[in-house]
Amino acid sequence: MVKVGIVGGTGYTGVELLRLLASHPQVELQLITSRSEEGVAVADMYPNLRGYVDLKFTAPDTEQLKQCDVVFFATPNGVAMTQVRELLDAGVKVIDLAADFRIKDIDVWQQWYGMQHACPDLVAEAVYGLPEINRDAIRVAKLVANPGCYPTAVTLGFLPLLEEGLVDSSGLIADCKSGASGAGRGANVGTLLCEVDGSFKAYAVPGHRHLPEIREKLGIVASETVGLTFVPHLLPMIRGIQATLYANLKDTSVDLQELYEQRYADEPFVDILPPGSHPETRSVRGGNMCRLALHRPQDGDTLVVLSVIDNLVKGAAGQAVQNMNIMFGMDETSGLDMISVLP
Amino acid sequence: MVKVGIVGGTGYTGVELLRLLASHPQVELQLITSRSEEGVAVADMYPNLRGYVDLKFTAPDTEQLKQCDVVFFATPNGVAMTQVRELLDAGVKVIDLAADFRIKDIDVWQQWYGMQHACPDLVAEAVYGLPEINRDAIRVAKLVANPGCYPTAVTLGFLPLLEEGLVDSSGLIADCKSGASGAGRGANVGTLLCEVDGSFKAYAVPGHRHLPEIREKLGIVASETVGLTFVPHLLPMIRGIQATLYANLKDTSVDLQELYEQRYADEPFVDILPPGSHPETRSVRGGNMCRLALHRPQDGDTLVVLSVIDNLVKGAAGQAVQNMNIMFGMDETSGLDMISVLP
Amino acid sequence: MVKVGIVGGTGYTGVELLRLLASHPQVELQLITSRSEEGVAVADMYPNLRGYVDLKFTAPDTEQLKQCDVVFFATPNGVAMTQVRELLDAGVKVIDLAADFRIKDIDVWQQWYGMQHACPDLVAEAVYGLPEINRDAIRVAKLVANPGCYPTAVTLGFLPLLEEGLVDSSGLIADCKSGASGAGRGANVGTLLCEVDGSFKAYAVPGHRHLPEIREKLGIVASETVGLTFVPHLLPMIRGIQATLYANLKDTSVDLQELYEQRYADEPFVDILPPGSHPETRSVRGGNMCRLALHRPQDGDTLVVLSVIDNLVKGAAGQAVQNMNIMFGMDETSGLDMISVLP
Amino acid sequence: MVKVGIVGGTGYTGVELLRLLASHPQVELQLITSRSEEGVAVADMYPNLRGYVDLKFTAPDTEQLKQCDVVFFATPNGVAMTQVRELLDAGVKVIDLAADFRIKDIDVWQQWYGMQHACPDLVAEAVYGLPEINRDAIRVAKLVANPGCYPTAVTLGFLPLLEEGLVDSSGLIADCKSGASGAGRGANVGTLLCEVDGSFKAYAVPGHRHLPEIREKLGIVASETVGLTFVPHLLPMIRGIQATLYANLKDTSVDLQELYEQRYADEPFVDILPPGSHPETRSVRGGNMCRLALHRPQDGDTLVVLSVIDNLVKGAAGQAVQNMNIMFGMDETSGLDMISVLP
Repeated sequence: MVKVGIVGGTGYTGVELLRLLASHPQVELQLITSRSEEGVAVADMYPNLRGYVDLKFTAPDTEQLKQCDVVFFATPNGVAMTQVRELLDAGVKVIDLAADFRIKDIDVWQQWYGMQHACPDLVAEAVYGLPEINRDAIRVAKLVANPGCYPTAVTLGFLPLLEEGLVDSSGLIADCKSGASGAGRGANVGTLLCEVDGSFKAYAVPGHRHLPEIREKLGIVASETVGLTFVPHLLPMIRGIQATLYANLKDTSVDLQELYEQRYADEPFVDILPPGSHPETRSVRGGNMCRLALHRPQDGDTLVVLSVIDNLVKGAAGQAVQNMNIMFGMDETSGLDMISVLP
Repeated sequence: MVKVGIVGGTGYTGVELLRLLASHPQVELQLITSRSEEGVAVADMYPNLRGYVDLKFTAPDTEQLKQCDVVFFATPNGVAMTQVRELLDAGVKVIDLAADFRIKDIDVWQQWYGMQHACPDLVAEAVYGLPEINRDAIRVAKLVANPGCYPTAVTLGFLPLLEEGLVDSSGLIADCKSGASGAGRGANVGTLLCEVDGSFKAYAVPGHRHLPEIREKLGIVASETVGLTFVPHLLPMIRGIQATLYANLKDTSVDLQELYEQRYADEPFVDILPPGSHPETRSVRGGNMCRLALHRPQDGDTLVVLSVIDNLVKGAAGQAVQNMNIMFGMDETSGLDMISVLP
Repeated sequence: MVKVGIVGGTGYTGVELLRLLASHPQVELQLITSRSEEGVAVADMYPNLRGYVDLKFTAPDTEQLKQCDVVFFATPNGVAMTQVRELLDAGVKVIDLAADFRIKDIDVWQQWYGMQHACPDLVAEAVYGLPEINRDAIRVAKLVANPGCYPTAVTLGFLPLLEEGLVDSSGLIADCKSGASGAGRGANVGTLLCEVDGSFKAYAVPGHRHLPEIREKLGIVASETVGLTFVPHLLPMIRGIQATLYANLKDTSVDLQELYEQRYADEPFVDILPPGSHPETRSVRGGNMCRLALHRPQDGDTLVVLSVIDNLVKGAAGQAVQNMNIMFGMDETSGLDMISVLP
Repeated sequence: MVKVGIVGGTGYTGVELLRLLASHPQVELQLITSRSEEGVAVADMYPNLRGYVDLKFTAPDTEQLKQCDVVFFATPNGVAMTQVRELLDAGVKVIDLAADFRIKDIDVWQQWYGMQHACPDLVAEAVYGLPEINRDAIRVAKLVANPGCYPTAVTLGFLPLLEEGLVDSSGLIADCKSGASGAGRGANVGTLLCEVDGSFKAYAVPGHRHLPEIREKLGIVASETVGLTFVPHLLPMIRGIQATLYANLKDTSVDLQELYEQRYADEPFVDILPPGSHPETRSVRGGNMCRLALHRPQDGDTLVVLSVIDNLVKGAAGQAVQNMNIMFGMDETSGLDMISVLP
């Protein structure tokens, strides 16, 4: 049994981690910390966990965390970077679900996140936890930077094209739509039901923090600088991201359906839909799957890739568990084989 | 392994059965029939099942169904009653998720369902599949009538009161609210998103088919005729029922919290919340739990019971699986231990 | 032209007042105050008002307010009571949309609102602004207490019964359901989309502040103390209240449909639906109408009244405008004749 | 007073036309026809119209329609083309809200709509009713083809760019999202609440009927063939379209904000938001406005235009009324000045 601790699990990523870990056959949940909710039973805050999780939130306690095999940070950006070293030094593996270790370029990170990075050396050491490109490195990693939700959906969608150099990488477009859970559980006028329900809008078009993350990862894959226009939108619903991706094909004679199917043939959590399909976010709700479909409208040279994930699962907590499974040599799908709830 | 067949599984109850049975460790799904969808892959119709269920819908075929240990009918009312006898005679157990065998009083049934009953003798033999009142009978039943969704929520909420004779059973009120999935997957203007979203209404106030079912079952529990006003409402959401129940207490000195906790102490799927609680339907979404809370506002003699279930799980497919578990001597929670997805 | 000021118009009641007043043919909007949003253009905060309202929020300024003919208070409870006297003394009429002047019994008010009342004498003088019972008094009122949303829906539903003494007034039940806008625009975890959407629950069952208000007003109408069980619920939608009301008829031979039709025959904003109807909240969305339907299920002695309003219109801003129209001798429907948007 | 008839007004476009026309100060509603709903009171079908419209649906009757000054066709595609000539010959003006007269290229139309066109000569004569490009022609038109919802949002968004030749018109992208009301009121599994709510998907990516319409109109504006990738998506909500438009700028030195503001300075129903804005569909819900915002992320050469309309108003019924106003020399905003309901 892997002994697991969670730091800061009061948000939606936290409850989702708890849901997944509580059902994981090889995991023993040790503690979950929250300064603000200390003493509160987890199941009182998240009634779906009644009968499954009997932990209470405890005050952060490094000594207790050191007893764990792995610690997940589900904290705001900038927290993990101040606490991780001590755990790593004690031999504890760490998976950070925030952004502290995602971007290798420290200057870029500092510019977009508006703070000084506390441990650039650990950034260098951290492994970006997208198993579809970094599985071998994750297997031996001590510190995993769990990818952002948009970067997961976008990167998996563009990946085979960029690896093969099949598209003009200077003019990629990612028109992305996310449910409101991506904005977290903070008290915020902008995500009140009355502000979001029955309406739709783009946001952060001038620049969103996931842009540099996506650009860096796509650049590594493509072995060249990529140009990306990234427009996020807010959907009037809770869970789910769809990335609608546009790229100009250099060569329209390649069988892209076959390329994608082969690229992802051994991936347990990437599903290439049959030609002509339109994936629905509900088909992955609560599950760790990314479903992709390819279209070349009017047989032109614009490729459209439709990519859907559950932002809280493959886009956050599920991918974190997937990374843990890899890091500890467990079956990669362990604890992640639940079927999405539909309707 | 229990060999399972499903007749008519194209509706929401069908897909929910498939979700639960596909994850059930002791079940082998043999076939699922649908005249209209013959040849269609189940996973093409329900993309959440891709990778979990590789069956195709087949034409109804009694000989194949006879090879099963148990057959679930997820058909419209009036279908099962014409097909069940042949299966029972062949030693196959049957669980009907429709209303054909729910009401013992044939005249009442015929009046509310507007058709002649095809096999009154089997109605007499059938066991009403609410484990909380009929577990022993279910254990040896050949034919189980799976309860309606509203009747499940209402009966579990009133049960301890009526068993103990603590309330005036002539003036019970059940103000019930259901998500739209209770209306099924038929093409119907009334359940279009544009008709239901952002709005709320009562329906069928003059009389709903679940009224006689509830009245009969409560009457059995109370050992007297009960008077019930039942007002169903349609919620602008997919899953979930809340029954808000009102009853006049004969005696306000009884510790009702304790009564409920004791009555349901051994029930794996009934959860009595602490005093002062307000259960949310999302806390049981996708799960088989019924959560109850008790209130006596202003310490008066009106008791308010709040009862929530997922209409497709404890109110349909989950309860059917629970019944199967009991009928085959399996752990009653087998295949039903998934945690609700929240948010 | 009536010169109008609004104090504290940044919430949902405020924007709704602005929508209605901006289209009112006899109103001249003078100012709208908000300490927190001073200097912000109203249309920047509420983009639906772009092109219709070019005011900015200004700091509260009593001298400017004194230039108005009428001032609406759309402030939190406890604010108006400290500011109203000065305006009244200056001859300005006041309509308070909060609860400061709704309850005549000061002790009851202080108990439920948890504060000392600043001006009990003005409470005595204030007129409860439900035109259907107090039209004549409103006509000459200087200070109108605009009713709460639930009290409006419930009182209009029970009114004819209690006036005529047709029901047992000791055991009334009001099972009420409200959209989330009733909770206001404050940053609050409990009303985030992710907490409310796709779920349903009761709240405040032990006691809600609208209970004493309803009880007092029904008591006045009935000329006796009434017993009321009031259970509010939160709907996963923005606007709309349905009150489902239950009462025991003393005499089932009265033609209640006719009674209601006659009682409300001259009321411009109460609509009695034909027998057998189920009003939908969307049918009054954005409009000032209250629609009622009557049912006597199974011809029993329990009467069910279905009452729907838009909580922000007839339950708040619309009723306030209706009161203003009456107070200034204008056509009562002036500025309130817009058709609800459906779907 | 303009005497108005509506043919086939049972769908969402029909009820929206009724809402707008019933409040129009210069319109007299004469009749509304529907074969299927003959004899049904309009207000029984659409309860928001109770008290505002007392018409019943009548059987189609050409003689009665000939008494009108203008007839709106809110019928399925292919109906108006068989009935319009007789009305035009009788001097009645016609506004078709379906697609029969939108596309000038008959071959293209026949290919996409899968039927033979009944009157190509009338197509040639018809005026495409987008006032922002065709106001003068509309003023004298006898037959107006009311634009599709997506074409309205997309064309208004690209218009100034193409008129000025500022972008590469061979690689335009329109990533569009629509509420479910765009799919109409037909009984259809795909638009059930349980299929649409809480989920998101693209649809018709291989080809949507609005593609040739948009391409033709943009081509006329640009005076050259345009290349357009058009990807529609279904939003889990009722009303509203957002078109997120992408174009490659030939020259990044042009002040596009000023260009748009000038181009639309005199347009009553196009609103250019300040730089940095993100329009919300709710800001135009129930109103006839199109709101646009411009972004050039990271100061690159990709321009992003955000365009929102209410698909049932500016995208259908509202634009039809706007066209009527122009055709009859009335104030163009007459009957269209209602403020959007928010929240």
